[in-house]
Amino acid sequence: MNGTWIHAFGNGRAPDSNVGKPLLGGKGAGLAEMSRLDLPVPPGFTITTQACTWFFQNGESWPEDLKKQTDDALAALEADTGKTLGSNTHPLLVSVRSGAAVSMPGMMDTVLNLGLNDNSTEALAKATGNTWFAWDSYRRFVSMFGDVVLGIHFTRFSRTEEAFLNGRSRDDLSIDELKALTHALIAMTEELGHSFPQDPSEQLRLAIDAVFRSYNSHRARYYRKTQHIADTAGTAVNIQAMVFGNMGADSGTGVAFTRNPKNGAQGLFGEWLPNAQGEDIVAGIRTPLPINEISRATPEGESLENAWPDIYTQLTNMQTTVENHFRDMQDVEFTVEQGKLWMLQTRNGKRTAQAAVQIVVDMVEEGLIDRTEAIARVDPASLEFVMRPVISPGAQKRVIAKGLDASPGAACGRVVFESSDCQEHFERDESTVLVRMETSPEDIQGMTVAAGVLTARGGQTSHAAVVARGMGKPCVVGCTSIQVDYARELFYAGDSVIRKGDWITIDGGTGEVMEGKVEMLAPQPDGGAMSVLLGWADDVSRLKVRANADTGADATRARELGAIGIGLCRTEHMFFEPKALRAIRRMILADDPRSRQRALTEILPLQRHMFREIFLAMDGCPVTVRLLDPPLHEFLPTREQDISEVATDLGVRAGALQARLSQLHESNPMLGHRGVRVGITSPEVYRTQVRALFEAACELTSEGVVVLPEVMIPLVGLEKELETMRTLVAETAEKVIAECGARLEYKIGTMIELPRAALLADRIARHADFFSFGTNDLTQLTYGLSRDDMGKFFPDYQREGVMPVSPLAVFDIAGVGQLVKMGTERGRETAPNLKVGICGEHGGDPVGVRFFHQIGLDYVSCSPYRVPVARLAAAHAAMGL
Amino acid sequence: MNGTWIHAFGNGRAPDSNVGKPLLGGKGAGLAEMSRLDLPVPPGFTITTQACTWFFQNGESWPEDLKKQTDDALAALEADTGKTLGSNTHPLLVSVRSGAAVSMPGMMDTVLNLGLNDNSTEALAKATGNTWFAWDSYRRFVSMFGDVVLGIHFTRFSRTEEAFLNGRSRDDLSIDELKALTHALIAMTEELGHSFPQDPSEQLRLAIDAVFRSYNSHRARYYRKTQHIADTAGTAVNIQAMVFGNMGADSGTGVAFTRNPKNGAQGLFGEWLPNAQGEDIVAGIRTPLPINEISRATPEGESLENAWPDIYTQLTNMQTTVENHFRDMQDVEFTVEQGKLWMLQTRNGKRTAQAAVQIVVDMVEEGLIDRTEAIARVDPASLEFVMRPVISPGAQKRVIAKGLDASPGAACGRVVFESSDCQEHFERDESTVLVRMETSPEDIQGMTVAAGVLTARGGQTSHAAVVARGMGKPCVVGCTSIQVDYARELFYAGDSVIRKGDWITIDGGTGEVMEGKVEMLAPQPDGGAMSVLLGWADDVSRLKVRANADTGADATRARELGAIGIGLCRTEHMFFEPKALRAIRRMILADDPRSRQRALTEILPLQRHMFREIFLAMDGCPVTVRLLDPPLHEFLPTREQDISEVATDLGVRAGALQARLSQLHESNPMLGHRGVRVGITSPEVYRTQVRALFEAACELTSEGVVVLPEVMIPLVGLEKELETMRTLVAETAEKVIAECGARLEYKIGTMIELPRAALLADRIARHADFFSFGTNDLTQLTYGLSRDDMGKFFPDYQREGVMPVSPLAVFDIAGVGQLVKMGTERGRETAPNLKVGICGEHGGDPVGVRFFHQIGLDYVSCSPYRVPVARLAAAHAAMGL
Repeated sequence: MNGTWIHAFGNGRAPDSNVGKPLLGGKGAGLAEMSRLDLPVPPGFTITTQACTWFFQNGESWPEDLKKQTDDALAALEADTGKTLGSNTHPLLVSVRSGAAVSMPGMMDTVLNLGLNDNSTEALAKATGNTWFAWDSYRRFVSMFGDVVLGIHFTRFSRTEEAFLNGRSRDDLSIDELKALTHALIAMTEELGHSFPQDPSEQLRLAIDAVFRSYNSHRARYYRKTQHIADTAGTAVNIQAMVFGNMGADSGTGVAFTRNPKNGAQGLFGEWLPNAQGEDIVAGIRTPLPINEISRATPEGESLENAWPDIYTQLTNMQTTVENHFRDMQDVEFTVEQGKLWMLQTRNGKRTAQAAVQIVVDMVEEGLIDRTEAIARVDPASLEFVMRPVISPGAQKRVIAKGLDASPGAACGRVVFESSDCQEHFERDESTVLVRMETSPEDIQGMTVAAGVLTARGGQTSHAAVVARGMGKPCVVGCTSIQVDYARELFYAGDSVIRKGDWITIDGGTGEVMEGKVEMLAPQPDGGAMSVLLGWADDVSRLKVRANADTGADATRARELGAIGIGLCRTEHMFFEPKALRAIRRMILADDPRSRQRALTEILPLQRHMFREIFLAMDGCPVTVRLLDPPLHEFLPTREQDISEVATDLGVRAGALQARLSQLHESNPMLGHRGVRVGITSPEVYRTQVRALFEAACELTSEGVVVLPEVMIPLVGLEKELETMRTLVAETAEKVIAECGARLEYKIGTMIELPRAALLADRIARHADFFSFGTNDLTQLTYGLSRDDMGKFFPDYQREGVMPVSPLAVFDIAGVGQLVKMGTERGRETAPNLKVGICGEHGGDPVGVRFFHQIGLDYVSCSPYRVPVARLAAAHAAMGL
Repeated sequence: MNGTWIHAFGNGRAPDSNVGKPLLGGKGAGLAEMSRLDLPVPPGFTITTQACTWFFQNGESWPEDLKKQTDDALAALEADTGKTLGSNTHPLLVSVRSGAAVSMPGMMDTVLNLGLNDNSTEALAKATGNTWFAWDSYRRFVSMFGDVVLGIHFTRFSRTEEAFLNGRSRDDLSIDELKALTHALIAMTEELGHSFPQDPSEQLRLAIDAVFRSYNSHRARYYRKTQHIADTAGTAVNIQAMVFGNMGADSGTGVAFTRNPKNGAQGLFGEWLPNAQGEDIVAGIRTPLPINEISRATPEGESLENAWPDIYTQLTNMQTTVENHFRDMQDVEFTVEQGKLWMLQTRNGKRTAQAAVQIVVDMVEEGLIDRTEAIARVDPASLEFVMRPVISPGAQKRVIAKGLDASPGAACGRVVFESSDCQEHFERDESTVLVRMETSPEDIQGMTVAAGVLTARGGQTSHAAVVARGMGKPCVVGCTSIQVDYARELFYAGDSVIRKGDWITIDGGTGEVMEGKVEMLAPQPDGGAMSVLLGWADDVSRLKVRANADTGADATRARELGAIGIGLCRTEHMFFEPKALRAIRRMILADDPRSRQRALTEILPLQRHMFREIFLAMDGCPVTVRLLDPPLHEFLPTREQDISEVATDLGVRAGALQARLSQLHESNPMLGHRGVRVGITSPEVYRTQVRALFEAACELTSEGVVVLPEVMIPLVGLEKELETMRTLVAETAEKVIAECGARLEYKIGTMIELPRAALLADRIARHADFFSFGTNDLTQLTYGLSRDDMGKFFPDYQREGVMPVSPLAVFDIAGVGQLVKMGTERGRETAPNLKVGICGEHGGDPVGVRFFHQIGLDYVSCSPYRVPVARLAAAHAAMGL
């Protein structure tokens, strides 16, 4: 078969733009594109995937004219570079790399420095003035060629080398010894029946065959199978001239981002090293220098801009070229060989979430992309990291344990085990990480002042996780590999023992727990780029975004982050304020209706005040208030010591408190006496809450504040429950409104969090102005799993691929989704104007948001720090992404 | 308006049979029917409901000719009885009773002894020879007439009477004092502006008006409203001659059942008293005598058969007449007035469940009814009581607390608080009732030998309830009003203190807890009537019935009771056998794979043996074996004392055991690490169980036993879970079958007990040969309630009408039913031959059984003692009842 098997690139040559990836492979297409942009790419040529396919279809032979085309292309390359393969004076070295159309990272093979032999190595030594480097390159080439091309296992080479070194380090070898080692490796190759070809064109032919064959290696086939990639496409082979940044004082190498990858600021940002190769930067052996002043981290070191202004100008122009072409921030690897700038690679640069936002907003302004593309480019989930400290990308760290990534951001502090210790350190201005088996409401104060929280138990929606997310505080939970010993004030993690007062760092975005202080990147002011982007997003989206907030401060933050209302105000969180907690405890322990009412009377003004603050913060926006949800025993202490303290405080005997506690004990509290069940059995509790709410609302209304309260009844599973509670709420509300002589519109609705409520939504909707799906509990019940207990089996489930992600983190469309869809449809059959939202953690989960958009929900509600995520996800959903 | 307003009955008169209930009301129609059968009914007449309607439509006036028709009917009545209303010598006394077409029990009024006045009372005194009785009747008539007819509140009469008595008892009054009291009541009536009419026809007219009006009383209207009965039907009025059993030695009164209400045996069964009124029997002032020898309870007392052979013959003939007519056992009230037998009432007699079965089977044999009717007549739920002791219907009892009726039957025994004490008493042949806060697996041995179980906590499917039902043992759970004090070995119930060793009686059919020994009725051999009836039922039904059984003994019992297979064999119950329990504990505490495997190796033969016994008992029938379901910590001790004992036993430190326990602790064990989750994380446990199962099966197969095993995976919510476990089970099974060289068919399926499994049944069915709905857990998850915790709010829910019955007792068709239906349909979409059953408590709940029949399930499975219930319910369902 004849045809065009080869496409040359670089030095003014480039394949036609209609010769794309299928023929050139990914890498070849990239080189072609850079060539067409007239970027200074080291020249070379690509053998097409078609040749590879022919190779396999014809008993691993070459098509007739491939040899000739290769020879021609090589000749042209030699002419272009003024170098010759195997030359004693100007030796051409090439790399031979595979490159299939679909990327198979790490699956295919590469040969560097092809063209080296006993002669050309000496020539290279002369050219670089570095004989050691030249022979070391040759040594490496021998091993690489032996391994990749000849199929000798690389351990053979290391064994031979070890025997030769006999305990010494390779760096200590003299040049002669290095030469001897290289020849020893060649000798070993030949002892095994292979011959190491000194002829570079033979090297090349064999290397091309090897790259072809690597496409059908066992691991490549396995990879394609697992990734569902067709087996027939074949790989291209890229032969490219090597360039060297270590050829003297006029050579060098560097990496440059076209914009600052940390914050997105405009202008080149990068590092370089004179007379060095790329590996030198990567390996960290020499400290790189800043490329320009804005890239400078330390005072020492000359910038490239200063040292080589011409090269810098070329780089700057290149920035414009690649950005205009790829319309995205690029990460460019370059080498200067004897005063000539070569561009080795350009790709979309990795960046922080903050930078990503800044860049797309700037690019819209620069006319590079439009708003739709700006919205589409940013991953909604990444927005959660914009306002959090993160571990510095290159930081040294020693990870001692890994838990669940409960609340993103990094935190560093002294280990404490008791909440009260957080406060102490806080007063001394020292940061702490609170480490506990699990947290309970008693830890709220401590969590408020801790830098981060680490728990051994619990899942993504455990107390610690939920509270920390609400506070925007880094948190790692379910870290089952640590063992906390409260008595001895230490915890074990593998071989490490971490004592109270020791420093640790946690990364709530990865779940990592690290020893000591790890370098972090503080969140930087973003100049409002995020709010610009989210404004564009809001223009596109249909689904509204509210926030879950329990205090005035949270509500204010939520509003700043763009929430158009509060979708879930958990009134129980109000009860954890110390004064309220005492009153509620007195209420629970009351033996007679009179003292119970007295306690409630005490609670009323506290609740009213807290409602006032939230309503004030949300002037003009709806606020959904959920009446008391958790079982009453959650307000009572559980630890031995706390019990006696609380008993003393309340003036009851510890025994009496203990007795009440054991009476309130529940086998499965999640399925127990909570939510509307408390409303039915102790209506006075709900009545007090409703009164407090409407007194606050009426008061503010008279001050000109627009209050739009929505009263939500939790845990409804029976029509009659909601019917009864609606009457109770409406009666109390009307009474208060009449007493105050106010005019106030309000809604009464329910949380749909039991499967039964979703199944019977048509009946329940008879008594509801709105539904809010509580997807946390709904997910737990649909799966029959408890967030606090799943840590025991979830790691195994993940490892075995039974459940790759937790349905509490990523919404389960297939299962729970059916109930949400059913509940919405049935509810609206009964009440076509029913307002429907969701207020679980999934309100900030992009997978969930897309689904909730699709099934026509009105809004999602999530923790304030996830509001940006949800807003962007809602836009993505509306755009069909 | 003219017309026939009146229909006479008795003494040869009777309304036409086409004049039915709508005109005569329920009571009038009954009297008419008895009259048509020529039964000796005291004569009288019925004023139709039409008259009542006319009355209200015409300003509470009578239709023109009603007065005349009443007078004529009264004249005929006087002629029939030879007595005259108000006569000085032979006074006619009548009762005036309401009777609407639809029964409104207790809602309408009655006047007795109408016709008494100062004169006729003296005549009655002469006729009965009992002046005190006559005046006491008059006194009562004055009060009753004043209350019902004149509208004077009955407390006025009691106050006047109390003032008169001034501390004495009425029984101590002399005749003169009684007369004075009667006149004092009349005087009081007149002081209030009413006149008490001495004229009996005036009494009658006013009484008829009052009965008419009572139909529109507030309480009657309210009752009709709540019962959805139309308001326009009106009531009939029945005027009937009074007869007296206390008119001397030739008078008497009695109650007779046409068959024995305790066991259904043929022949009259009843009691009588000479010279007495009906109240005397009811009030228990005099001990009644047996009506014949088969009714005799004590040696003393002459039977009616002996005393009055003629009357007895009449009664016996009457039995034939009423049974042939009503085709059911009748409860007859009769009075003999001066040698003449009068029949006051006949109605379908109440009977024990055993009697009900015997009677319908006998009646089919007697040709009175056909099989279909026999099946239809017996309430399926009642069959659960057939084989249990019950409290004697007339027994004296002092109820000190009431809990949930967890497992029917009555038990009487000494109170013990520890399982070990049950054993001790058992060895001394003394029966015990085990009283606990709640039971745990450690109590199984004690429960086995206790007569009954009482727990303060827990619901219908708590451990105690489920285990007791499985054992067929009386049990009351969730008795929240008792307070158990283990330390002092006593419990409080209201004012009572019950100490260890005291006797109590519990009724698991009503939930009652009684002080002391209460008289019980032992279950009597039924001569096979139940199995005859159930045989007929099986011919009719489509839905098959299996049993839940965990041991060979249970399986044998289940088979005797007609189960055609085992639908649920819970393997964990096997582990509670002491030797197995030790091994499983060692397995849980094992630190390394080797000691874990060693423990499992010890368990294997024990499991194999137990499987063998069940398979043997079920030769030729399918047996569904559920692999381990509960969380592992359920096998570890929880009580302080047990922990140290177990630690000693296993040779580990108590601290180590405690540590493992706290590691295994779960916040919500129901939603925790259990079921298939254990199978995924510790596959060796399931592998051991499957090996034991198939070794037993192969062994028996080689002995000629037909084993049909069905392996069931619990708690599946994800397709991948079942896929993984199916592979594990099949691999192990095939290996064992190959090792044994056996041929064995088996099925692999899953329990559908998570809402998600029902929602995704189409996917899960890809890997299942059968589905078995676990409606206990499915109900708990759908409602978000825990059987063990619902006791805290369920009483309030019941009282408020929010949830009249527990969905764990009566299947929730509206909610959980949707999931069962959906799961079945979707499962069969994927696998049309999927075998589908249920194995929750609802397998024995007739409401559930009807639904499961309707949606096309193949079988239900319930505890052995409920198999008869399910079989009959399945027939009812097939008959569309």
